[in-house]
Amino acid sequence: MPNKITVLTGDYIGPEIMAAGLRVLEAVSKAGHFEYEATTMPFGGHAIDECGEPLPQRTIDECKNSDAVLLSAIGGPKWDAAPKRPEQGLLAIRQALNLFANIRPTEISPAMMQYSPLKKIEPVNFVIVRELTSGIYFGTPREQHADYALDTMRYTKAEIERVSRVAFQMAQHRNHRVTLVDKSNVLATSKFWRVVVDEVAKDYPDVELNYSYVDAASMKIISSPEQFDVILTENLFGDILSDEAAQITGSLGTIPSMSTGDQKPVLYEPIHGSAPDIAGQGIANPFSMINSVKMMLAHSFDRADLAERIGKAVDQVVADNIVTPDLGGKYGTKEVTDAVIKNL
Amino acid sequence: MPNKITVLTGDYIGPEIMAAGLRVLEAVSKAGHFEYEATTMPFGGHAIDECGEPLPQRTIDECKNSDAVLLSAIGGPKWDAAPKRPEQGLLAIRQALNLFANIRPTEISPAMMQYSPLKKIEPVNFVIVRELTSGIYFGTPREQHADYALDTMRYTKAEIERVSRVAFQMAQHRNHRVTLVDKSNVLATSKFWRVVVDEVAKDYPDVELNYSYVDAASMKIISSPEQFDVILTENLFGDILSDEAAQITGSLGTIPSMSTGDQKPVLYEPIHGSAPDIAGQGIANPFSMINSVKMMLAHSFDRADLAERIGKAVDQVVADNIVTPDLGGKYGTKEVTDAVIKNL
Ligand SMILES: CC(C)[C@H](C(=O)O)[C@@H](O)C(=O)O
Ligand SMILES: CC(C)[C@H](C(=O)O)[C@@H](O)C(=O)O
Repeated sequence: MPNKITVLTGDYIGPEIMAAGLRVLEAVSKAGHFEYEATTMPFGGHAIDECGEPLPQRTIDECKNSDAVLLSAIGGPKWDAAPKRPEQGLLAIRQALNLFANIRPTEISPAMMQYSPLKKIEPVNFVIVRELTSGIYFGTPREQHADYALDTMRYTKAEIERVSRVAFQMAQHRNHRVTLVDKSNVLATSKFWRVVVDEVAKDYPDVELNYSYVDAASMKIISSPEQFDVILTENLFGDILSDEAAQITGSLGTIPSMSTGDQKPVLYEPIHGSAPDIAGQGIANPFSMINSVKMMLAHSFDRADLAERIGKAVDQVVADNIVTPDLGGKYGTKEVTDAVIKNL
Repeated sequence: MPNKITVLTGDYIGPEIMAAGLRVLEAVSKAGHFEYEATTMPFGGHAIDECGEPLPQRTIDECKNSDAVLLSAIGGPKWDAAPKRPEQGLLAIRQALNLFANIRPTEISPAMMQYSPLKKIEPVNFVIVRELTSGIYFGTPREQHADYALDTMRYTKAEIERVSRVAFQMAQHRNHRVTLVDKSNVLATSKFWRVVVDEVAKDYPDVELNYSYVDAASMKIISSPEQFDVILTENLFGDILSDEAAQITGSLGTIPSMSTGDQKPVLYEPIHGSAPDIAGQGIANPFSMINSVKMMLAHSFDRADLAERIGKAVDQVVADNIVTPDLGGKYGTKEVTDAVIKNL
């Protein structure tokens, strides 16, 4: 059985960086004898244009039939007034594929420190495990009336347990620390998270569990990000904190993420948006997509060797300062990608 | 009628910095012929010890009978296992006094830039207007069961309107820009906020209204904080973003805030916590409380002249580097306060 990858190319700069990622995938696969089958399906803004909706059923079917999904940035002003917006496709695909854990590395390596907006930092290396298919994003009732509106933040024990296990297992392969971020001095759901996570923690005696309120965590991400190993948090807090965390690296254009459930496929995507302002200029940073490919090879296909080759090639290209304008360079997407491929 | 101030001295370092603030108030009042009557009432942790609850009824009564409330940091580990926690007093006093708008200045002046953790910044000067008595902090149902829990984020039109007016009015006295921060690509309450705020905005044609999703705002606070003038947001987002904003100044120990409703009293307090780790050492930074006194004199008592005297004295003391350890100095609370008073 070939390794199956579904490709969702995205909007605006989406296809530009996807092309870069696929070129690197092709090159490293040839060199490393990795066989795969990649199928492109409609998703996001251009799926609205083509099929009238951001996530057509046949795209779901194809994804479910794959080992991994490579997704590029979607959405943009073109669909601002559309009856269905591209972002609804994002929420829908998370639910359809049961991708309940979103995993975002936040890394500031010595080589990348120059890009960080923070004055002085020690190397930073933590991951945020964000619950992705529940909480206030999906809870009901959700109502908008003439004179009031409401949303519901709801979590079941099972939903908290399964994402917590992802976090604890990650910590076992890292520095053995999980920080649960919540607002348990106010919210009932947060108090419940503490109860459930405390229980789960008993199964991982080699992992230390500590706690932070979300407001305090938003400060620590700036003041002492080096203290974190694995941050575990619910959907909305994870949305805010993971973007804040990305910003302290100063290199959003390089960061991949993965979203996983308890069966295939796992979805890989850059964390940044579709950057309509630079679309079509050939200057989008391909590293986030190349790093998504790298993550995919390591996690979905057990090819740490190929992931390492990509990682080393990217490091070399950064060291050679062959980078796009967002990282202060003067090179285009294609030149940077060529350089990565040459260094593989 | 004398000007009436209720004093809530707080826990751990709370009383230490309150003493400093009151000394400065006394000194500037004598010099500037300001008459006031200050009454100390129990609140927070020590109220739990004395009265069994963090916000006794007589404290509410006294506050309601005042023009202004000066509050210092409350809570701490002593009450971690208490049946009622000090923080409940905070939520209760906001409701009891109908303090629906929390206003937090975020300022990085050229003199204070040295303390900012950000590499290069232009001067920053914005305020966050946070809704303080509704949203998911107070919405019902709020339930915790054996296998699930839920909270409700709820807003009425009237609640959004009144706090929005505070923001637009502030913007009229500042740079005429309001940024509404929400998650309107997901939440019904956020969509509703946009509708209501768009409507309110029509009454302030001299103020420009723009929008940011909360996740994007958490990035902009780091990448380009100079772009903001007045940020308007709901309770939970305001909690997270205002702490993040405080952190980019690098000088939490200096920041005051005010919480206001549509009648007296207005409440003034430092934004930081009760710092149990340094309590009793006499090294707590008194600036946040001194600045709270300054804010009170300007806003509740129309004494911009006295506020300016305090402001100039504090600037001078910072310039002379007579500061506490959190700002890299070697002076104690008392010495710093003495220096401020000498410079009044
Ligand atoms: C587009 C939006 C619905 C989405 C989210 O809030 O989850 C995005 O911000 C993200 O983090 O992937
Ligand atoms: C202590 C807590 C309930 C409170 C809040 O979340 O409002 C605090 O974080 C604050 O911002 O004043």
